[in-house]
Amino acid sequence: MNHQLSGRHLIDGRWVAAAPADDGAFSSLSPMTGEALAPHFSEATPAEVESALSAARKSFVAVHDLDPRWPAALLEAIAARIESLGDDLLQRGEAETALPRARLTGERARTCSQLRMFAELVREGSWVEAVIDQSDPNRQPLPKPDIRRMLRPRGPVVVFGASNFPFAFGTCGGDTASALAGGNPVIVKGHPSHPGTSELFAIAVSMAIDECKLPPGLFALLQGRQNELSAQLVQHADTQAVGFTGSLRAGRALFDLASRREKPIPVYAEMGSLNPVVILPAAANERAGPIARDLAASLLLGGGQFCTKPGVVFVVGDPERRFADALAQHVQSAPAVTMLNRNLRDTFAERAALISRSNGVIAAVSGKSSGHADQTAVLFETTAEEFLHNPRLHEEAFGPGGIVVQCDSSAQAISCVEALGGNLTGTIHIGKAEDQATVALVLRSLENIVGRIIINGYPTGVEVCHAIVHGGPYPATTDSGTTSVGTAAMRRFVRPLAYQNTPQEILPPALQDDNPLGILRLIDGERTDRRIESPTR
Amino acid sequence: MNHQLSGRHLIDGRWVAAAPADDGAFSSLSPMTGEALAPHFSEATPAEVESALSAARKSFVAVHDLDPRWPAALLEAIAARIESLGDDLLQRGEAETALPRARLTGERARTCSQLRMFAELVREGSWVEAVIDQSDPNRQPLPKPDIRRMLRPRGPVVVFGASNFPFAFGTCGGDTASALAGGNPVIVKGHPSHPGTSELFAIAVSMAIDECKLPPGLFALLQGRQNELSAQLVQHADTQAVGFTGSLRAGRALFDLASRREKPIPVYAEMGSLNPVVILPAAANERAGPIARDLAASLLLGGGQFCTKPGVVFVVGDPERRFADALAQHVQSAPAVTMLNRNLRDTFAERAALISRSNGVIAAVSGKSSGHADQTAVLFETTAEEFLHNPRLHEEAFGPGGIVVQCDSSAQAISCVEALGGNLTGTIHIGKAEDQATVALVLRSLENIVGRIIINGYPTGVEVCHAIVHGGPYPATTDSGTTSVGTAAMRRFVRPLAYQNTPQEILPPALQDDNPLGILRLIDGERTDRRIESPTR
Repeated sequence: MNHQLSGRHLIDGRWVAAAPADDGAFSSLSPMTGEALAPHFSEATPAEVESALSAARKSFVAVHDLDPRWPAALLEAIAARIESLGDDLLQRGEAETALPRARLTGERARTCSQLRMFAELVREGSWVEAVIDQSDPNRQPLPKPDIRRMLRPRGPVVVFGASNFPFAFGTCGGDTASALAGGNPVIVKGHPSHPGTSELFAIAVSMAIDECKLPPGLFALLQGRQNELSAQLVQHADTQAVGFTGSLRAGRALFDLASRREKPIPVYAEMGSLNPVVILPAAANERAGPIARDLAASLLLGGGQFCTKPGVVFVVGDPERRFADALAQHVQSAPAVTMLNRNLRDTFAERAALISRSNGVIAAVSGKSSGHADQTAVLFETTAEEFLHNPRLHEEAFGPGGIVVQCDSSAQAISCVEALGGNLTGTIHIGKAEDQATVALVLRSLENIVGRIIINGYPTGVEVCHAIVHGGPYPATTDSGTTSVGTAAMRRFVRPLAYQNTPQEILPPALQDDNPLGILRLIDGERTDRRIESPTR
Repeated sequence: MNHQLSGRHLIDGRWVAAAPADDGAFSSLSPMTGEALAPHFSEATPAEVESALSAARKSFVAVHDLDPRWPAALLEAIAARIESLGDDLLQRGEAETALPRARLTGERARTCSQLRMFAELVREGSWVEAVIDQSDPNRQPLPKPDIRRMLRPRGPVVVFGASNFPFAFGTCGGDTASALAGGNPVIVKGHPSHPGTSELFAIAVSMAIDECKLPPGLFALLQGRQNELSAQLVQHADTQAVGFTGSLRAGRALFDLASRREKPIPVYAEMGSLNPVVILPAAANERAGPIARDLAASLLLGGGQFCTKPGVVFVVGDPERRFADALAQHVQSAPAVTMLNRNLRDTFAERAALISRSNGVIAAVSGKSSGHADQTAVLFETTAEEFLHNPRLHEEAFGPGGIVVQCDSSAQAISCVEALGGNLTGTIHIGKAEDQATVALVLRSLENIVGRIIINGYPTGVEVCHAIVHGGPYPATTDSGTTSVGTAAMRRFVRPLAYQNTPQEILPPALQDDNPLGILRLIDGERTDRRIESPTR
């Protein structure tokens, strides 16, 4: 199969571009060579934003009366169509991101299994959290009404994918999958760093929508690299919610735009994270070597371009420097990586230079930039005192490198944790001989600032499951009440709606007495999949 | 019993006031006479805000290791202490709000039953939504980790109570109850319109905290009427979330402050709502009289000072004006009410004057202002065309009055609904002979903009239960994903936290294998209260 890229936008099922591809256009650049990759991509115009939202609004009306499980078939068809893109997707992904073929093959599997997980959730149906409180006409002093609640879609969702997970957090990634699963139209703003990859995914979605005979306005891909396009999408009156994965600067800008609208909308932005790791004394003593080896692997996985990269390590009691020296050795021996794009590489190199010039910081491993976007790993080391006094060290450096902070005591490590802002994850390494009261205090300090605690493990590798939380207090995300990975991610794009004394024939199926969807519901406080036999009014 | 009011703030269990009560102080004014009611109340200073937050932060640490059901006993003790305030509370409430004794007696019962409902929820324990995905060390290509998730408190919550429900949405109202239930310290900014009522409630909480031997910093009451105090509370670095009930102007101001913080926090503001009612032709034909009678009662309940007041009625097909004339008669014959305060009365009278001067609007019943804060009911009437062309008519007028919009067709009524912003509720009156396709279209138009649909009923009277949604799209609230009434209100003040590969001895009880709290959990996708027997790692 050979998928020809058009460089256009997908709007209401058609590939269009009002602005010619050579006028204000852009290309993706090979991270390996800096060469422009064909074709040129058009920058979406305000009229195209309008068309995409208008089609989304119409499609949202059109799906209202379908069987509420309609997204299941669509999500499954998208997964199948992604698979049938075959090597075209892997080749283009590799050319645009420099991520190795094996990694992208794994990420494709994850992307498709996420889509299928949400399909399964939709088909099962209980995700709507149906709650029924039956009436009691004889209650005193007032009769009790019949009230039933369920989760309903919000409407058109705008998704900004990530550069570092071009598949799993990209055009058909977790945000798109969970928003579609909830029954919302999705408009994806393609990441300018891999527009060809985005177009291939959009081809898959477009074919899947056709196959399922669903309204084409349910999905749009708008390409562009100007801030104005992003702003128009977030500010459009029909946009009901935003999903974003990327930098703190960009995420905050979108959050600010959304908050300042006449009618504010939620922005679920997953942004920067340092992902602190605390190595307690017994752990450092018992397992310095294995921890150093595995932590180096986690730190450098994917070129250090993971939002869960363990970027700061607080080590308590490593007097012979067994841990610190072993970590440095592993980092030193890592080969250079080609980063996702030159801009990220340059930003990382600048951050590294800034850190290396900080008081009391030494470069345990000095990184080097080369080629178009190549970078070798860096490792810094400092003391808890310096770390506490230098807020610059509390910011994420996105790329292959991190900092080890030598702590005299667990109390000092706790002070360092408390000086951090919100994070996606927090890790503790605990030895067999660890002091349990100390462990509890360190755990507590991390609980206050993270979305996920990891014990004796590594934060990279986010399991897609029911229990996962990929979220956390600001600046890890803009809404610590949610997760962007796992089944609970759907909750972001739906809202509760209650029906009072509403006749059976106009209630949504999920709330009807005879439970036609066979879902689990909370009826008068009891969780059950039973039908309601007698008329309640 | 005779509770002496001090006019001071409750901070960390002590009644204090840095600013003397006669310096920058304020009093509540009798809505009946305009007379100042003793005592003077102090305006909380920045240092007092700091003290309250500092005590809250410390108390949050102190309760961390208690049995997680600790809020249950506290909430029950608060309810009992409120009841033992006896007539002092009712007398002061009546003096400060002009709400009749019977209404306040009912509202006290609701306030206490809300507190006990949350206590029961906490005691039962499953509200933490514990989810356990067990490990699979043999999974290929990578072992599956053990991940467990639960909801945890956010930390100090600032609550701004409402003027119109001085008990049920006041100092010990739904926001305070649900925030405490989640395990969060609460700082209440007392409503300046009923500071004595607020102080009495704070006395009850203070005694309850003592009785339960809990840290006094768990609750604070700060009195004041300056915007600066509100801003300091919302902007304080330790404040983690805000609950608010009141006007759109004030709610939006707090939302803007919170969104512009370096670290934004959620503001759950319940604000204005028109609560549209659509009367379809067969309903108007079959039940014009009863609907007019009951709608007038709902419109004027509590002096029209309910956030669920049905402020706009779209009537389709009332050619003989049976409905419109009957409604006007009921409204005309209603006695004057003393509104909650003069400011609200004056704002209402101004809004009414503005509406009456609008093109194509006639005053079916002309209201009159009198006394210090008295107001008779008003009723306006216009056509759908005028309503659609005049956005001024789409704004809430808080007080005893509303507007009837004559519609030529259901399609016109739907256009009017679509012109509205978000609302708490939407009501449809349906007759036996109604056209079902039309009903479905009207329902759909309301579903898009409200949090609760009511069929053949009236929106006032919000049932406190599992299924209720007291929320809705902006401007009804700032977060349509939540509710401020019912058991689900707790969800606002907690966030999910996941634990990966965490040993039993440091896991929170809710997530431990042997389920010591006996709660319902989702284990590997199955909802169960079983223990996990075999070690999972």
